[in-house]
Amino acid sequence: MARDGETRSRFLRVYDCLKDELLRDPLFDHTEETRRRVEEMLDYNVPRGKLNRGLAIVETYRLLKEGDELSEEEIFLACVLGWCNEWLQACLLILDDIMDNSHTRRGQLCWYKLPEVGLHAINDGVLIKCHIHRIIKRYFRGKPFYENLMELCDEVGLQTSLGQMLDLIVTHEGEKDLSNYTMAVYRRIVQYKTSYYSFYLPVACALLLAGENLDDFIDVKNILVEMGIYFQVQDDYLDCFGDPKVMGKIGTDIEDYKCSWLVVQALERANDNQRRVLYENYGKSDSVSVAKVKNIYEELNLQDVFFKYGLASYEHLISSIEAQPNAAVREVLEWFLRKIHCRQK
Amino acid sequence: MARDGETRSRFLRVYDCLKDELLRDPLFDHTEETRRRVEEMLDYNVPRGKLNRGLAIVETYRLLKEGDELSEEEIFLACVLGWCNEWLQACLLILDDIMDNSHTRRGQLCWYKLPEVGLHAINDGVLIKCHIHRIIKRYFRGKPFYENLMELCDEVGLQTSLGQMLDLIVTHEGEKDLSNYTMAVYRRIVQYKTSYYSFYLPVACALLLAGENLDDFIDVKNILVEMGIYFQVQDDYLDCFGDPKVMGKIGTDIEDYKCSWLVVQALERANDNQRRVLYENYGKSDSVSVAKVKNIYEELNLQDVFFKYGLASYEHLISSIEAQPNAAVREVLEWFLRKIHCRQK
Repeated sequence: MARDGETRSRFLRVYDCLKDELLRDPLFDHTEETRRRVEEMLDYNVPRGKLNRGLAIVETYRLLKEGDELSEEEIFLACVLGWCNEWLQACLLILDDIMDNSHTRRGQLCWYKLPEVGLHAINDGVLIKCHIHRIIKRYFRGKPFYENLMELCDEVGLQTSLGQMLDLIVTHEGEKDLSNYTMAVYRRIVQYKTSYYSFYLPVACALLLAGENLDDFIDVKNILVEMGIYFQVQDDYLDCFGDPKVMGKIGTDIEDYKCSWLVVQALERANDNQRRVLYENYGKSDSVSVAKVKNIYEELNLQDVFFKYGLASYEHLISSIEAQPNAAVREVLEWFLRKIHCRQK
Repeated sequence: MARDGETRSRFLRVYDCLKDELLRDPLFDHTEETRRRVEEMLDYNVPRGKLNRGLAIVETYRLLKEGDELSEEEIFLACVLGWCNEWLQACLLILDDIMDNSHTRRGQLCWYKLPEVGLHAINDGVLIKCHIHRIIKRYFRGKPFYENLMELCDEVGLQTSLGQMLDLIVTHEGEKDLSNYTMAVYRRIVQYKTSYYSFYLPVACALLLAGENLDDFIDVKNILVEMGIYFQVQDDYLDCFGDPKVMGKIGTDIEDYKCSWLVVQALERANDNQRRVLYENYGKSDSVSVAKVKNIYEELNLQDVFFKYGLASYEHLISSIEAQPNAAVREVLEWFLRKIHCRQK
């Protein structure tokens, strides 16, 4: 725990350093106003989350190099890559919140909801994404994995964007006919929209930094995709059954017609009457309709279904991890699994 | 002219090829729906403009290699880079149109204005930008200029995004006090928001493809930045005085409180009474206010000021170009200048 706190504060110091460099970037002749605006925007959006993705890179790198004493420089570079992941996350959240018409995020108003920001937040999201390659160039140009690192970020960015598109299309189809929401569709959305950038990307970054070839870690990628799906199922569960005070946001998956794990499970289990109630009330924003949907979830014991699903996923993941030949990789995957198992937010 | 037509149709064939590859990209397991959606989105947004930036790369490359017979492969690669610029332009226009609340673009409804698109257009813009690196990787990985090309696109993307932010901030300040709109501020916005990506980027791409080192072409960059400013002045002029049928869009710079070259010039020349009318009516969307502003523009003979400015810019650019030691570079710059001088749209 002491190490966790130390890692975190060291990690946050690297944020200040990266931000300062971006604000002094000779590519742009900043005015006082633009510099202030970029700083405010970064401070609001980049470092205020749980920092799980960023810290995961540092931890993964540490585990991969277990046995070696890491230099200050090596830890610093792992932190830099960690922040690249947090920068990507910030970009995605800013833009998703606009598209989803969300209200709060991380316990504060969504960035675009601030009266002085509005739709300018779109450009802010784009700018934050531009920063990522700028940071990578600054610290990794000349390293043997430089091109691979750039391409990895690009590829995961592309997959995430296509996953987001798939989600939007599926939601549109679901609005016409709820029966389009199936477990196969659900898994495909989550794989692209969440798993790659939240689970595979941190590990892949750390592997590159440790000098590994990503082609040798296809199994690891698949396990991380599964973990991402498990994570998203929890997210969907918490959206409905979690404590908004702990979460920092109020769930609106039902109102938003989301292809949530809960509605997929409910559709699989509902009798004709329950199915009719779901069809009539899912995706409506009035509190009576939402309560009717939640009531069906209760009737179908989805909380219980969720706990059983969690246990099965956990066991499946444990056995996949145990089958991995590389001890350091097993430790990394176990670390990730511990982080997500039984989470409250 | 025959060559122009031939270049154009060859260029358009390369678009089909690039699009097909993106739709078959193994990074994403497309459904029929997502493939159809990406294709429709690309067709609507990427190839329907004037294609100036894209064709400029092909022409620049041809001029730089004057004397050499270009192979099919070389022309194809120049077209690919040309399309990367058009892809970037498409991304910027999609997102700018949302932020500016625009209605039409290139003679059709703005993409986000289509009822089935809406704010999902944000993700489409991001996706289009992701495609650029994907295309560059596909065709240029392994070339000696690969990293420089990636970095060039990133840097110009970052500058454009910061220029966009500067524009939004300045417009916000102008709304509080119109006297914030000065020629110095105007030039800075245009340099970052328009010149780099519209003028420098095509030439820089062609220079890299021709094996040149961009550090040797700082003067060329500065001339292209000036040309970009000249181009934007024309754009601002046409926004007010151009023919909407020829332009494919209806100008709204006055209504939108834009830091336009026209209002900057008007503020420099207005007497107290005219200045009062500008302060009272600029940025209002009713037709009476707009007409009052246009009336001041007429009183101040801004059409005449524009033609004189155009002539002076043209002469200044011609003499800067003539001072360039490299004959091929002079030809490139003259080609650009011919393209923009006296344009109607």
